Order: sequence, then structure tokens, then C-alpha cells
Amino acid sequence: MCQLLGMNCNTPTDICFSFTGFQTRGGLTDIHSDGWGIAFFENKGVRQFLDPQPSSTSPIAEFVRNYPIKSKAVIAHIRKATQGVVSLENTHPFQREMWGYYWVFAHNGNLENFNPDLTGFFQPVGNTDSERIFCYIMQSLRNEFGDKYPGSDKIFAHIHKISLELAKIGELNFLFSNGEFLISHCSTRLTYIVRKAPFTTARLKDQDLSVDFGDLTTSQDRVAVIATTPLTDNESWQDMNPGSMVMFKNGELVAEATTHAWTKKVVTT
Amino acid sequence: MCQLLGMNCNTPTDICFSFTGFQTRGGLTDIHSDGWGIAFFENKGVRQFLDPQPSSTSPIAEFVRNYPIKSKAVIAHIRKATQGVVSLENTHPFQREMWGYYWVFAHNGNLENFNPDLTGFFQPVGNTDSERIFCYIMQSLRNEFGDKYPGSDKIFAHIHKISLELAKIGELNFLFSNGEFLISHCSTRLTYIVRKAPFTTARLKDQDLSVDFGDLTTSQDRVAVIATTPLTDNESWQDMNPGSMVMFKNGELVAEATTHAWTKKVVTT
Repeated sequence: MCQLLGMNCNTPTDICFSFTGFQTRGGLTDIHSDGWGIAFFENKGVRQFLDPQPSSTSPIAEFVRNYPIKSKAVIAHIRKATQGVVSLENTHPFQREMWGYYWVFAHNGNLENFNPDLTGFFQPVGNTDSERIFCYIMQSLRNEFGDKYPGSDKIFAHIHKISLELAKIGELNFLFSNGEFLISHCSTRLTYIVRKAPFTTARLKDQDLSVDFGDLTTSQDRVAVIATTPLTDNESWQDMNPGSMVMFKNGELVAEATTHAWTKKVVTT
Repeated sequence: MCQLLGMNCNTPTDICFSFTGFQTRGGLTDIHSDGWGIAFFENKGVRQFLDPQPSSTSPIAEFVRNYPIKSKAVIAHIRKATQGVVSLENTHPFQREMWGYYWVFAHNGNLENFNPDLTGFFQPVGNTDSERIFCYIMQSLRNEFGDKYPGSDKIFAHIHKISLELAKIGELNFLFSNGEFLISHCSTRLTYIVRKAPFTTARLKDQDLSVDFGDLTTSQDRVAVIATTPLTDNESWQDMNPGSMVMFKNGELVAEATTHAWTKKVVTT
């Protein structure tokens, strides 16, 4: 099993604090030592750092932790291999282009014997179930909507439909983003927090580190952080229900789906 | 205009020495200060570092220069913007997946008014002529060969055909690789060197730095380095002829094309 970390905000924000706690789970405070990766969107561009080494000892992870890259959408992953060897091509997050956007995907879980027909435009490079799931979602979106970007609501509804099918096969927690929005699907474990004014001090669970977000933010800032388990021990994280899916845009939860239906939230900006 | 750097070898090799000279051209010894990027293949996986900052002052470039990532195929680029703003999505090298391989492309030159129909599976994310050229090549390869990877020789021949068309429009120096081979097309300026035993000492042109490759290699190693202009001043670099294209595999030149025809080299391993 693996661990996921996501961030979505209304203003470019660095993820150094959250990543500091997350990084130690890759071989130090937890067992996820089969590689790690992180993708930062900056407008439509994406910057990705991937490393098959454990994040707790990876020089690249150390660099990322100390170098504040500001982004409105981030997806990170630390890996405990279930399917596929430990190698660069099996390291999450995965990335593909569609409709003139880059799409980034990271998965926690295990879909045994999931071998869909992927002989078209989205073929896996490595040999994980996770990359096959990503390619399957991309292929299905493309088959459904053709050449043109259909917008976030239609994508959310379609991925919700696919996820209901796939979650029958096995554990399927994932993060998915094109930089404009971030979708989070929970099959067993995912939790999130939306930080906004008045900002307070947060204290990491996995390291002796606190930060007063009041010093670093303006009253307009809004930052959603999603993780497999809470990263801080003095804030209220919202556990997602198994079978639910949410979408964040500009740091705000804008859509929510259960196993039965999904609703669009009224945005209260 | 921009500068290109490529490497292809028969054993995973770090590019720290060549990158040290190359990096200084991004704003220090030369004017290419509108971003830089580098892609390292490791088997079928690829690790990419992209930064819209000048490479001479980029902390990520400094990290890459000092951290020896071993790879058999590398493509790097420093940018002097001609088309498209300075931004992450316009930073080379560009990457796409096709046939279960990642493909990486970087371009030096300028194709004015090059706006091919790109509404299918390879759409540009940014707004450079370079990314449009890459998408056009990928689309054309896919249209020609369908769902299945056709192998390097057919790809070389087809890209040669496309390049003859495109080079009529403007300057088209590029590097293209899937990790198994590296294609280099020269429209105006590209030069290469193949280092093999007996290895000697090389001295950088752009910085006061020498390295004795005899200390770092075995007698079986073979390393091809391709650059816009020679990176060292005490070795014999082979200038490519305008209109020519070469392919390297395992550090060896295996195919060469002129404006008229292409020949497959007899590999003498």
C-alpha cells in the first residue's frame, strides 16, 4: 500500500510543511520505501520529481522539502510496491496529455487481475495496476467526450461512474488533476482539511515541527490538503467515507459524490 | 534561439561534466536565459527537471549539476524564447507517451506560422512552435504506424521524411528519444562526439573544469554527446551537415541521413 498527498488552493502556495511530514513516512516513520514522486502544476505546465529511492533518504526529496515551489495543485505519492517492481517507470504520479492539458494521477490500493484492453492512445509504460487504472480512466474519458475538453463537471460525473465499477475489483484511493481542479476518490482511507482565515498554528504528527499559517497567508487564501491519514495532530481533518469522491477547485470543495449520487456544491466565494 | 544537449550511451552514465558547461550558457556565458530542462531515461522510465528560470541561477539546475543521475539517454535544453512566453508549459524538453514508451523532444530554431491541425491525441499544452512540431511528429508517426511500435529504423525513416518537409519552413534542430535510441536532426547547427576507449582528458570551454574520463569509465564504455556547439575545446567534435539526421543507439551512430537519402550503419560492436 502507498500514501497519497494532494493540495489545491486559490493562490500559489508551497507544500513544504505538509511534504515534510509526508516525506518521513517513506521509510522512516512508516514503511512506504519503494519510491516517491510529486507533481506541481504551474498554470498549465507541470513539474514532476520522481525517485525510486525511499523519500526519507532521497536527495531529491530533501531538495523538494527545502525549495518552496509555489503551486495551486500538487499531487504526491510514496510507494509500497504491491504490483510491479521498484523502478522509475512504476513510480507515481503518472502523467499524460489530453485535450491540451497535462493530467496527473496517483493511486493507493490494489486491483488484482485488472487487465483492461489498453492498446490505443493511452498505454502503460510500466507494469503497475495503478498505471493501468490511469490509462483506463483516460481512455474512457476520451471515448466518452471525444476531441474536446468537456469541463470539470462532466469529467467528475464520468470518473465517478468509472470508479463505482473499478472499486468493485479492489482498493481504489486516488488523486487526479489537470491543474484546474483536483479529484479525490476514497475507497478505504483518505482525509482532507480546508485551511482558510482565521489561520492557526498546525503541528506535524510525523516530525517535531509547527507552523503558524497566519504568518504566511492573507485572509483571502484557501488551501485544501488531502492525505491518506492526517498530517497534523491539532487540526480537524475530515475523513472521507468509503465510496465517496470529492472535487476541489481554488481550495474549495465544489462537488461531492457518494456511492449512489453526486451533488454540485454551491460555491460560496 | 536555444541550445541543445543530448547524450546516448551503452552503460548508464552521468552527464554532470557536460551539463556543467551547458548550464553556464543559460544566462552566464551566453544569452539563453528563458528557462531550461533536462530529461533522463532510466530503462523505460523518465525523470524530468523543468524550470522557467535561467539555468545559470536555477537552484534545480545547481542540484542536477551536483547529483549524478546515471542514464543511457538524456536530452537537455536551454531556452531563448522566440515564440511563446517564458513559462513552465513552454519549457523544453516536452514529453508524451505513445506505444507504451515515453517520448522526449527538444528543439532549437524557429518555424514561423507553423499551425498544423492538432485536434487529435497530441495537442500542445503551451504555445511554442516547438511543442507544435513535436505533436505534429507524434501524430504523423501514429497515423503512419497505428497501434504498434514499429521499431527504430522505421521511425528514423519516417521522421527523416517529415523533417525534410518541416525544414523548408524554418530552422529545425532537434533531439528526440524514447530511451532506446536518440535521433538528432540538424538544420543549421549541431555537433557530436563519440567517446570510447582509450578515454582521455576533456576540458570544458565554458568553465575552468577538466575531467579524465579514463578514471571514470571501463574500456567497453561508449558515450555519444550531441550539442549545439562543442562543449570542450581539446577534443574533435563532428559538425553535422545542415539537412542531416543521425540516430544513436548504445552510444553508437547507427543511422545517418542526408537531405536525399539515409543509410543504416553496420554496427561494429
